[in-house]
Amino acid sequence: VAQTFADRLLHAIRAKGAPVCIGIDPVYDNLPAEITEHPEFNDAGDSEVGVDAVLEFCRRIIRIVAPFVPAVKINSAFFERYYSEGIDGYYQLIQEAAEKDLIVIGDVKRGDVGHTAELYAAAHLADPSFDNLDELVGPDAVTLSPYLGFDAVKPFLDVARSDQKGVFILVKTTNPSAGEIQDLVGPDGSTVAEHVARHVAQWGSDPSLIGECGYSAVGAVVSPKDPTTAAKLRALMPQAVFLVPGYGAQGASAADVAACFKPDGTGALVSASRSIIYAYENMKYLEMYASEWEKCVEQACKDFVADLKKVSAPR
Amino acid sequence: VAQTFADRLLHAIRAKGAPVCIGIDPVYDNLPAEITEHPEFNDAGDSEVGVDAVLEFCRRIIRIVAPFVPAVKINSAFFERYYSEGIDGYYQLIQEAAEKDLIVIGDVKRGDVGHTAELYAAAHLADPSFDNLDELVGPDAVTLSPYLGFDAVKPFLDVARSDQKGVFILVKTTNPSAGEIQDLVGPDGSTVAEHVARHVAQWGSDPSLIGECGYSAVGAVVSPKDPTTAAKLRALMPQAVFLVPGYGAQGASAADVAACFKPDGTGALVSASRSIIYAYENMKYLEMYASEWEKCVEQACKDFVADLKKVSAPR
Repeated sequence: VAQTFADRLLHAIRAKGAPVCIGIDPVYDNLPAEITEHPEFNDAGDSEVGVDAVLEFCRRIIRIVAPFVPAVKINSAFFERYYSEGIDGYYQLIQEAAEKDLIVIGDVKRGDVGHTAELYAAAHLADPSFDNLDELVGPDAVTLSPYLGFDAVKPFLDVARSDQKGVFILVKTTNPSAGEIQDLVGPDGSTVAEHVARHVAQWGSDPSLIGECGYSAVGAVVSPKDPTTAAKLRALMPQAVFLVPGYGAQGASAADVAACFKPDGTGALVSASRSIIYAYENMKYLEMYASEWEKCVEQACKDFVADLKKVSAPR
Repeated sequence: VAQTFADRLLHAIRAKGAPVCIGIDPVYDNLPAEITEHPEFNDAGDSEVGVDAVLEFCRRIIRIVAPFVPAVKINSAFFERYYSEGIDGYYQLIQEAAEKDLIVIGDVKRGDVGHTAELYAAAHLADPSFDNLDELVGPDAVTLSPYLGFDAVKPFLDVARSDQKGVFILVKTTNPSAGEIQDLVGPDGSTVAEHVARHVAQWGSDPSLIGECGYSAVGAVVSPKDPTTAAKLRALMPQAVFLVPGYGAQGASAADVAACFKPDGTGALVSASRSIIYAYENMKYLEMYASEWEKCVEQACKDFVADLKKVSAPR
């Protein structure tokens, strides 16, 4: 029988030994010179050349990290930037990552009213229903915005149930202005983020969404920057897997993310993007491998895994 | 000199005589039989046929409504549903609507952290910067989600300034579960929606974003369903143009939307989608024009314009 998203994710984490996810956010100007100076890829002013360069880079990133990590998160913005060719590339990468047995999270942060959310769920989470696209697969999970409430989420849960997939709802994000809305405090002393957390817990509590592991197909995006808040959110959403951004380039350390895990070391998937995929811009790795950019990425990935293995060991 | 988005929008509203916007949310199963039974378009299971049918329909809708209305709102979800071909179609429609001198709003509801929001702003609001896509234009404005605060908005304001475009921030939406987050009340008695409204007013208050008409390039999406709330939000955002959904299929009447306007009859753009584009499913128009679906759409559009002309007359 098919496993729920949470069961598959926890299994993949156990198999690779660390709860980590590589975020794929490729920007042409940051690609290694080996790619951008190659005649085939050397024209930032042409969208088709640009997206080919980005895809070449992403394919190599996926090949490098696949042996070490359970999951990748692909942010659609970086592909939407290249219009329809970018969208083709986005779905190709999902396919290629899935073929390497990676759990794939589509970082789309969609949120719209019910009848529109149905279309987004069909496009961004479900496997394509069209006869001519039957080789394509949707990602295993997507990120969603909670501002419109349950209406924006429900169609995705229908897909999660039927196709054994998942969602991660934005609860507390890592960006500097996150608090403008998320930290507003209500009369009961709870913040907006805590209210969203209670909704996430409730939306995910339907038994049809809970895996054998006890976690729900409804997860949460939770910033590790303030451990007190993270611990409070961890308690409010006992069945939610946390997708934890902000490691590395955004400043969070392995110790910072500890509050996102349960004492048994489960319950969170920590994501790092720029600190891994652009490791060849980091002096530490440059000194080790000079211009061999793929070795820099591999080493940064291994260091990330080793770091998180410690944090997620049962306490 | 180039006009700001708000100046162009108000000018277009004056020229057409009514503050209305047709929402283009096409679903294959709702298209007129004349289209879906045509051999070229008669295969819902093939994405390329599906998107061709949808585009044929949308082109005809745009042609019908263009003489009567100042603006159209195209919801990207309904095109993303068709993967890369859908995205091609989405940008084609923007182009075609712009050529008919319609103000075009891209209803994308994006919201992501700063460096990602830059990519979304480049893809969804700016005119394409690629040499090979110089025939494409971006929409005049897009909708954005506020959950991440200003970081998710700022890159769009940079484009708004440089390219004379605009944004509409989701403040209070029309869907049934909108209140789950938006109606939460803080210790000062303000709701989350009112807090967002204060941010919208502040984000849009930069003089570089204000047009000669006094309105800002930063507008707000405001539900007309509760006139007391709408009036409060109107007072909190004196320089914001309101994009007001919910007319028609979602149940709001012309009288309901009155609170979204200022006493001089400016300050709001009322959007109707399904009640216009699917007018041929409405018995009222069917009885008038039977299967002549385009006449049904035209009449529904004219009725919408007449309705809103009354409401937006200076009080």
